[in-house]
Amino acid sequence: MRDVCVIGLGLIGGSLLRAAHSIGRTTFGATTSEADADAASRAGFDVTTQVEAALSKAAERDAMIVLAVPLPAVEEVLRTVSRVAGHCVLTDVTSVKGPVLDSVRRRAPYAKFVGGHPMAGTANSGWKASNPALFGGAAWVLGVEHDTDLTAWAVVAQLVLDVGAHVVPLPADSHDETVARISHLPHIFAAILATIGAQGGPLAMSLAAGSYTDGTRVAGSSPALVRAMTEGNRDALLPIVDEALGRLGAARGSLASTGGLAVTVNAGHEGAQAFAASKDAERAGVRVSLSAPDARDGLIALGERGGRITAIEGDIAIGEVS
Amino acid sequence: MRDVCVIGLGLIGGSLLRAAHSIGRTTFGATTSEADADAASRAGFDVTTQVEAALSKAAERDAMIVLAVPLPAVEEVLRTVSRVAGHCVLTDVTSVKGPVLDSVRRRAPYAKFVGGHPMAGTANSGWKASNPALFGGAAWVLGVEHDTDLTAWAVVAQLVLDVGAHVVPLPADSHDETVARISHLPHIFAAILATIGAQGGPLAMSLAAGSYTDGTRVAGSSPALVRAMTEGNRDALLPIVDEALGRLGAARGSLASTGGLAVTVNAGHEGAQAFAASKDAERAGVRVSLSAPDARDGLIALGERGGRITAIEGDIAIGEVS
Repeated sequence: MRDVCVIGLGLIGGSLLRAAHSIGRTTFGATTSEADADAASRAGFDVTTQVEAALSKAAERDAMIVLAVPLPAVEEVLRTVSRVAGHCVLTDVTSVKGPVLDSVRRRAPYAKFVGGHPMAGTANSGWKASNPALFGGAAWVLGVEHDTDLTAWAVVAQLVLDVGAHVVPLPADSHDETVARISHLPHIFAAILATIGAQGGPLAMSLAAGSYTDGTRVAGSSPALVRAMTEGNRDALLPIVDEALGRLGAARGSLASTGGLAVTVNAGHEGAQAFAASKDAERAGVRVSLSAPDARDGLIALGERGGRITAIEGDIAIGEVS
Repeated sequence: MRDVCVIGLGLIGGSLLRAAHSIGRTTFGATTSEADADAASRAGFDVTTQVEAALSKAAERDAMIVLAVPLPAVEEVLRTVSRVAGHCVLTDVTSVKGPVLDSVRRRAPYAKFVGGHPMAGTANSGWKASNPALFGGAAWVLGVEHDTDLTAWAVVAQLVLDVGAHVVPLPADSHDETVARISHLPHIFAAILATIGAQGGPLAMSLAAGSYTDGTRVAGSSPALVRAMTEGNRDALLPIVDEALGRLGAARGSLASTGGLAVTVNAGHEGAQAFAASKDAERAGVRVSLSAPDARDGLIALGERGGRITAIEGDIAIGEVS
């Protein structure tokens, strides 16, 4: 089992360091946060504030490197990776995949890179919120591009599976378009609802109940994190926001002209039923040979159909789709 | 204690009939649904499918009448009320207050009418979903207009308090504008999110997690109920939808031009904090004499400040505001 070097020890990086350690991997890491480094060291982890030193150790040991720094810090760390550990297996946990892939191609073109995004999180952040069980049962997207090194991919996938998550193989653009739909637009909508509600003053706050509480919950998230993920996904998010503007404008026009909202309300109800049905759907087993010539296409097809990989045995990825 | 006649025995009407019965009121009612009438009769309630007969009995006994029919049915029932029980104390439980007030002024101008809206509900509907504990701790808006008969108002308020709810006194226009903000816009947003999510197909459904689940939850509500409340509140809802369109358009413009969403995200976070703070706010006691010349102003001021009335003793309404 390959050693694991985690750069950045916030909620996700810290949780991954703990989780990898708990399943018996040799782990070490670095963070520029003195407070997080102190806390992690006191908890018994091999952690430094010297990112370059940690990456050099990763190169010596041929460890896999996990970038768990915020998106704006990725480019700078990639420069150091390229200089001292450019041939290590490299992954990240950032919430957008296209921009990170572009950065890797520019800054660390020889890295054996596999983009990653665990669909897990809490409202809290930092090492103090880290939890080795954070990833249990979660979907963890792993990038598959035309030039992805599937040997490196399997190394990263094995760690993801070992810490309890399921692997969703996807190209970066497909990931980014999907999270714009199901995460970034919901965050923008929650912010707007919370703003419009609060403008109603104490009366609105006193009458707000279920629909408002649910619809605004994620507006309580850290503004810095919400901005990082939405702004970082600008290219994929803009067309989704346009779609929302179009649908809201159509609802407005229909309410003003005919007085009816049937199209809006019925489409939403069908969408809610489709989501509920997806949870109860029968699932069928799927196997993809990672050494087959069309392995990348097989992995992507599995991910695009809403499937997940739950195990790797030899060179066979074992998954399920509905 | 005045007898209670409930017309319409769905979730709200049925729950009120059960709740009023459970606190010792003499209750009777009517519904045009044979199935609901049968079920209520089998449960031991004095219920008929003859609305006019029930209203005549209410007139004989000087009972208070609760209209718990859907908004589109209100006008027709009001005509019968005006004909056979025009001088009874009359209230309703419809989710919009301006249109009902207009109908009463047109169809039953001599009624001692007090508009009402319990902020309680579940995803289910019909007598089978009714529950006498539905109103415990809920806010229940009761209309206060310049011409409201405060003796009738106190009769309705006492029933509301007796079934465990708190009274929020408000003019119809203030109620309708507020529920457009904190309930009807959230329903429209949930419908649009659920539509856009589902268009992402099985992949989007498989990656959807917390923000999507929360943001779309009320899209699962009955489309007929959502349409009735949103379409029925058209005049108050249109400017709120316009505000949402303006804010979403501004977010789009900012993301496209500068790449930033700080204004949107920060305003939403402040709104979420204001909502959280409103739950923890210290509350001060307030007393309003219902026989004072400025009683209506005092009640409205209490409601507009986010206050609630929790008891009536003699002619004193006892409440709290933050």
